[in-house]
Amino acid sequence: MDFQPSAKILDLTRRMREIVDNDIIPLEPPFLTEGFGAVSTALDGVRKKIKAAGLWAPNHPPEYGGLGLNLVDNGLVSEVLGRTPLGHYSFGCNAPDAGNIETLHLFGNKQQKSQWLPRIVGGERSVFVMTERDNSGANPIFLTTTAVRDGDEWVLNGKKWFITGAQGAVVCLVMACTDPKAGPHGRQSIIIVPANTPGYTVDKATPIMGHAHEGLFGHCEVSFDNCRVPYDNLLGKEGEGFRMAQARLGPGRIHHCMRWLGICNRSLELMTQRAATRVIGEGDRRLADSDIIKAWIAESAAEIRAARLMTLFTAWRIEQVGAKEARNDISMIKYHVAEVLMKVIDRAMQTHGALGITDYTPLSFFYREDRGSRIYDGPDEVHKIAVARRIIERGGRVD
Amino acid sequence: MDFQPSAKILDLTRRMREIVDNDIIPLEPPFLTEGFGAVSTALDGVRKKIKAAGLWAPNHPPEYGGLGLNLVDNGLVSEVLGRTPLGHYSFGCNAPDAGNIETLHLFGNKQQKSQWLPRIVGGERSVFVMTERDNSGANPIFLTTTAVRDGDEWVLNGKKWFITGAQGAVVCLVMACTDPKAGPHGRQSIIIVPANTPGYTVDKATPIMGHAHEGLFGHCEVSFDNCRVPYDNLLGKEGEGFRMAQARLGPGRIHHCMRWLGICNRSLELMTQRAATRVIGEGDRRLADSDIIKAWIAESAAEIRAARLMTLFTAWRIEQVGAKEARNDISMIKYHVAEVLMKVIDRAMQTHGALGITDYTPLSFFYREDRGSRIYDGPDEVHKIAVARRIIERGGRVD
Amino acid sequence: MDFQPSAKILDLTRRMREIVDNDIIPLEPPFLTEGFGAVSTALDGVRKKIKAAGLWAPNHPPEYGGLGLNLVDNGLVSEVLGRTPLGHYSFGCNAPDAGNIETLHLFGNKQQKSQWLPRIVGGERSVFVMTERDNSGANPIFLTTTAVRDGDEWVLNGKKWFITGAQGAVVCLVMACTDPKAGPHGRQSIIIVPANTPGYTVDKATPIMGHAHEGLFGHCEVSFDNCRVPYDNLLGKEGEGFRMAQARLGPGRIHHCMRWLGICNRSLELMTQRAATRVIGEGDRRLADSDIIKAWIAESAAEIRAARLMTLFTAWRIEQVGAKEARNDISMIKYHVAEVLMKVIDRAMQTHGALGITDYTPLSFFYREDRGSRIYDGPDEVHKIAVARRIIERGGRVD
Amino acid sequence: MDFQPSAKILDLTRRMREIVDNDIIPLEPPFLTEGFGAVSTALDGVRKKIKAAGLWAPNHPPEYGGLGLNLVDNGLVSEVLGRTPLGHYSFGCNAPDAGNIETLHLFGNKQQKSQWLPRIVGGERSVFVMTERDNSGANPIFLTTTAVRDGDEWVLNGKKWFITGAQGAVVCLVMACTDPKAGPHGRQSIIIVPANTPGYTVDKATPIMGHAHEGLFGHCEVSFDNCRVPYDNLLGKEGEGFRMAQARLGPGRIHHCMRWLGICNRSLELMTQRAATRVIGEGDRRLADSDIIKAWIAESAAEIRAARLMTLFTAWRIEQVGAKEARNDISMIKYHVAEVLMKVIDRAMQTHGALGITDYTPLSFFYREDRGSRIYDGPDEVHKIAVARRIIERGGRVD
Repeated sequence: MDFQPSAKILDLTRRMREIVDNDIIPLEPPFLTEGFGAVSTALDGVRKKIKAAGLWAPNHPPEYGGLGLNLVDNGLVSEVLGRTPLGHYSFGCNAPDAGNIETLHLFGNKQQKSQWLPRIVGGERSVFVMTERDNSGANPIFLTTTAVRDGDEWVLNGKKWFITGAQGAVVCLVMACTDPKAGPHGRQSIIIVPANTPGYTVDKATPIMGHAHEGLFGHCEVSFDNCRVPYDNLLGKEGEGFRMAQARLGPGRIHHCMRWLGICNRSLELMTQRAATRVIGEGDRRLADSDIIKAWIAESAAEIRAARLMTLFTAWRIEQVGAKEARNDISMIKYHVAEVLMKVIDRAMQTHGALGITDYTPLSFFYREDRGSRIYDGPDEVHKIAVARRIIERGGRVD
Repeated sequence: MDFQPSAKILDLTRRMREIVDNDIIPLEPPFLTEGFGAVSTALDGVRKKIKAAGLWAPNHPPEYGGLGLNLVDNGLVSEVLGRTPLGHYSFGCNAPDAGNIETLHLFGNKQQKSQWLPRIVGGERSVFVMTERDNSGANPIFLTTTAVRDGDEWVLNGKKWFITGAQGAVVCLVMACTDPKAGPHGRQSIIIVPANTPGYTVDKATPIMGHAHEGLFGHCEVSFDNCRVPYDNLLGKEGEGFRMAQARLGPGRIHHCMRWLGICNRSLELMTQRAATRVIGEGDRRLADSDIIKAWIAESAAEIRAARLMTLFTAWRIEQVGAKEARNDISMIKYHVAEVLMKVIDRAMQTHGALGITDYTPLSFFYREDRGSRIYDGPDEVHKIAVARRIIERGGRVD
Repeated sequence: MDFQPSAKILDLTRRMREIVDNDIIPLEPPFLTEGFGAVSTALDGVRKKIKAAGLWAPNHPPEYGGLGLNLVDNGLVSEVLGRTPLGHYSFGCNAPDAGNIETLHLFGNKQQKSQWLPRIVGGERSVFVMTERDNSGANPIFLTTTAVRDGDEWVLNGKKWFITGAQGAVVCLVMACTDPKAGPHGRQSIIIVPANTPGYTVDKATPIMGHAHEGLFGHCEVSFDNCRVPYDNLLGKEGEGFRMAQARLGPGRIHHCMRWLGICNRSLELMTQRAATRVIGEGDRRLADSDIIKAWIAESAAEIRAARLMTLFTAWRIEQVGAKEARNDISMIKYHVAEVLMKVIDRAMQTHGALGITDYTPLSFFYREDRGSRIYDGPDEVHKIAVARRIIERGGRVD
Repeated sequence: MDFQPSAKILDLTRRMREIVDNDIIPLEPPFLTEGFGAVSTALDGVRKKIKAAGLWAPNHPPEYGGLGLNLVDNGLVSEVLGRTPLGHYSFGCNAPDAGNIETLHLFGNKQQKSQWLPRIVGGERSVFVMTERDNSGANPIFLTTTAVRDGDEWVLNGKKWFITGAQGAVVCLVMACTDPKAGPHGRQSIIIVPANTPGYTVDKATPIMGHAHEGLFGHCEVSFDNCRVPYDNLLGKEGEGFRMAQARLGPGRIHHCMRWLGICNRSLELMTQRAATRVIGEGDRRLADSDIIKAWIAESAAEIRAARLMTLFTAWRIEQVGAKEARNDISMIKYHVAEVLMKVIDRAMQTHGALGITDYTPLSFFYREDRGSRIYDGPDEVHKIAVARRIIERGGRVD
């Protein structure tokens, strides 16, 4: 066993960290109090700088303009970028684009790849359209939006919600039922729908945690009303939608975990700095002089360390045995890292006192926007039950 | 010992509950997605109805139009009103007005009472102006806003923040340093400043949890720039500010706890209803069929029960021995109930899945707006340290 | 609502507390390191003193020599006696005798009462024989020990385990299947078996937490091998065993909770005293100077307070509406108080460092012997599921 | 980064696992109910078999008969041996011998090594004599046992406690104050005292968790009463005792963590098997059918995984940068793994119901004997405070 990252990735992350600290974090205050619109122009400049520095799209295929890092190195990158809510967008590796690029790259045909990958890897935005309000998101078997073949076309009808970043995206990957009579895992297909297709409407952003965010950070309701696209917009084969979603969501979960580690690190830094500087009593006594705060810092550091190693181990294992074989590993980091994340954010917030609940630090944003970490891509409880079922089948072995 | 509430209070809370359920909760959806402005006119109507029904201002002095309930009965009322963020406002017993009325009633002279109490008890809004950004809110000793006597007038200068409800309020109780050379507990006085006094400015609402709320729910920065008021606007005696704030904050904390119990009850109801109705799998299997959800419901019920009894006990004890003697009791409910509150909200939210983080239920509002419960009126940690110090002094006895 | 205990019970508990502190706690060191045998003679003297002082058997019927306290007052007594493992035995109200007395008093006929109650209330020991190793103890439906009628006699056959205090007891209440074909709740009956009946054998004490305790504290395996007793030894009616066990176990659980509160109080006292005296560093710095220890003390105090009020409330409610109607209340204190108990013991132990795991304080005894609190009389999880099921049926209401 | 263990260590641990499962675990039942004496002869046979198989003393120097594994591989071994309380003893790598061997190997002179290392590596037992009852064990500065030079001899006087395995050991490494006037870290020296030296007495085993264990598992009080040994029995230099203890305790802590991982794995296996087989209701419903139990299994698996990787990472880091530089890493696993350990044992015990608190599984032994994990080698809180202090000094960086 060797825990030493390569010199190459250490250099890469060092350079990325400089841009995060010097160019992106200074944009947080207007972003946090005025919204994404207040910084989008400035971020365009940052993105150009990053492209020029050869740091763009670290996880994406080199043939389309990315750096093509493996999953472990990608984890090391992502914990740097995740330190700010604007990091992944700035470096061209934001969700859901990252997952869409992977899905198109794995399952798209030549034409589909050449049409969309350069644009999305290049920085235009895409969406993944799966979740429905009245059907448990944890189980794509029950989705009811339909795509019916009509000659050379698909006709889509239905409503979806929680479609992240729908406003301003140029293309959708849509999960739709193409054969309601098939077995539960063969009913769905994925169809590529350009955003300007008639019949496709982005209805509104769902108000979440007090905000109906615009653009990138909004989670929208969208509808398909006799929306027609060519039959050839089918991704992969008919009835393979569920399988492709699984292939996508598995590694997708690890991307979240990697990003959360960045949030954890940032929160620990903020907590430590606040503790070291906040005077709380006579004789220049500071927060850091209280053992309660010290215990929070020490516990957070250990939990982050453990979560980080488990995430990197899982990345390594996915590369060794594939996402399917590493299902337990992926599920375990999903719920374990999400729990660590929420604990660390909470302690950092409490350490800041009243300042912690204002928007003058990113902690309040993390607290609200990342509460979903324990819900999206399958609630923690669903993953726990699945992991336990497999461990029981194996008589106590985890893998 | 007798745990039986009186028939009178049971009748009162039953009638209040009907109004909460039938008239106020239906106003939550626009409030949660559009803000207070969207419902303020409708709430004016509800307030009239409540006044007409003889249910207005349950905790306030009868001579100024309230019902004059004792603290235990007030707790039973507050857990009903707290079920919705709009409850206390609708019934004329919202913070900070409730605390200001108590403070004026306890320490105001005849003229001050007759000038302000009828207006505030009647429904106009007031603010309590204490907290400063750069000085630990937990310790009013260090506040730096000054009031200097100039003949028959006070001249106030300084900046404050986290002034809840400053927009639209008609009068302020301002904590200001009147004698910087006095002992630490004798430096501050409280001065009454009408909101239309020149030199007093409500600068802006601090953005908190993503929102710079307007009106009632906003926490503002305010400034005093050579702001002059008559000397007779002094509340109580010079140098008594700290003592009066303590007298106010002690029982003030229990008002928060009582309200939180309402939030807990509502969250448990929402969690239970969601669990009973949300289909999660084949064969009509529901969330409530999972023992994990059942354990959350059962743990929440027990924790709420325990928190409730401890709060009512503390109310009873304050009435028996006074707030000062009941300091430990008050501190204990402050941190204990706040912790239960956050746990129950969190479980309810998780039970709702993606819906839980939207603004289509009040849970997301509770999660954000009540995170401050562990911070305001003294962070939990400050209270724990104070309680433990007294227990240690008493050799292990709590009271 | 009135939280004031009566003057009578305050006087009674004050006198009991003196005996606990002055006569019983000094016997703990030999008990903890040498076992019950080392103190049994001394305890006989203490029991005589208690009888002479008119404090014997506080919860038992006056007509058989007890004080006949109601359940709330009994709770106030039990938290005093529970401060030491020897308290309830010394005062003649130990489990399982307490439950057996209640059961005999409720369901025994005149002859059975006059034969056994004076002896057991007087201090001889009895056992309740229900649990079987291979059948879930949480569900008496599945028990397999049988009692077959043969003329004027019952013939018992089967094995039981976890029979507390079997060594040295004079009589058993035995749960046995008298009609395997009856409905699930009608199969069992309770039969009185004198300990000297041929065919009844106390096999051995099950080794638990490193000890096969003798006498009072041992949990034994016992067997019935064609053990014959008169038919009239049937308690209540045939097939009523399950119903009588429920009637017994309901209030039985609250007796445990009351005793646990005593353990909690004692642990908090020990923790506080240790914190106040243990020097940990230069300048006479003590454990109590660390905010971590202070937080433990404060959290424990609040949790104990909450658990105590919930237990007393449940006692009051059982008296108002009966144990069946108060099922949810009883289950809630069962799992809530047990959890508080284990947390408080654990913190007290950790505060003592290495001393905490030795037998030089009672903490190690509490830690081991009361771990079962979360298991016996129904594992916490079983109670949580039952409570939640009822809350769900009631649409969110707890009672 | 490469998480793949070498083929050599995989083969080694596979062979060790076979012996643990087939030869040692079958000895647990008599050990758990009758004590070490009941299995010591059988274990002698197992030890011979292990020596013959070339698996003896995996972590010790090859020149004295060990396998000389590096620290990472040693971790992989230890999590296999730790599955039973008898594992490390059987394989010749038990505490405190393991630490004593390391200390002698690092700091002993030629004569000292040749005299003692072959005997201890060969299987005779040794003790480390440091802790004193009235002085905080976390801080060796305050120890009061003295060693005064008298010509060619040291004369030792004082009392120690918690001396693990003192009965039957052949030699002691004694921490004694040789210069009370030196700076706090220069007062202590380590002196080798053969167990048969006059004036050295093993007084008694301290009763811990209900047992004054004999031999290997006993923690004894010992005394030095004008105990004389040659001056040359000094280990290293005068005044270096504290420094050598630090060098020893650093890696010593990781040995504990590695062993705890074995306990965690075993507990998870037992919990899983119990859940899969225990019938709890009608229709053959089993414990494993409850989502509560599933959640416990899944959470335990994730926590063990995280703790394991953090332990192996720390082993790797100690090898890269030394124990001093890796202080934070070592402290973090000390408190993090100990906490995981106690949680996993507790869940496994609860899953077993009444059986879990008996001595018919090793869980009750783990629960009692490993509660000390959060106390020995420095209470968790001391480590947390030390870790936080360094993180604060580094402005938020952990290492």
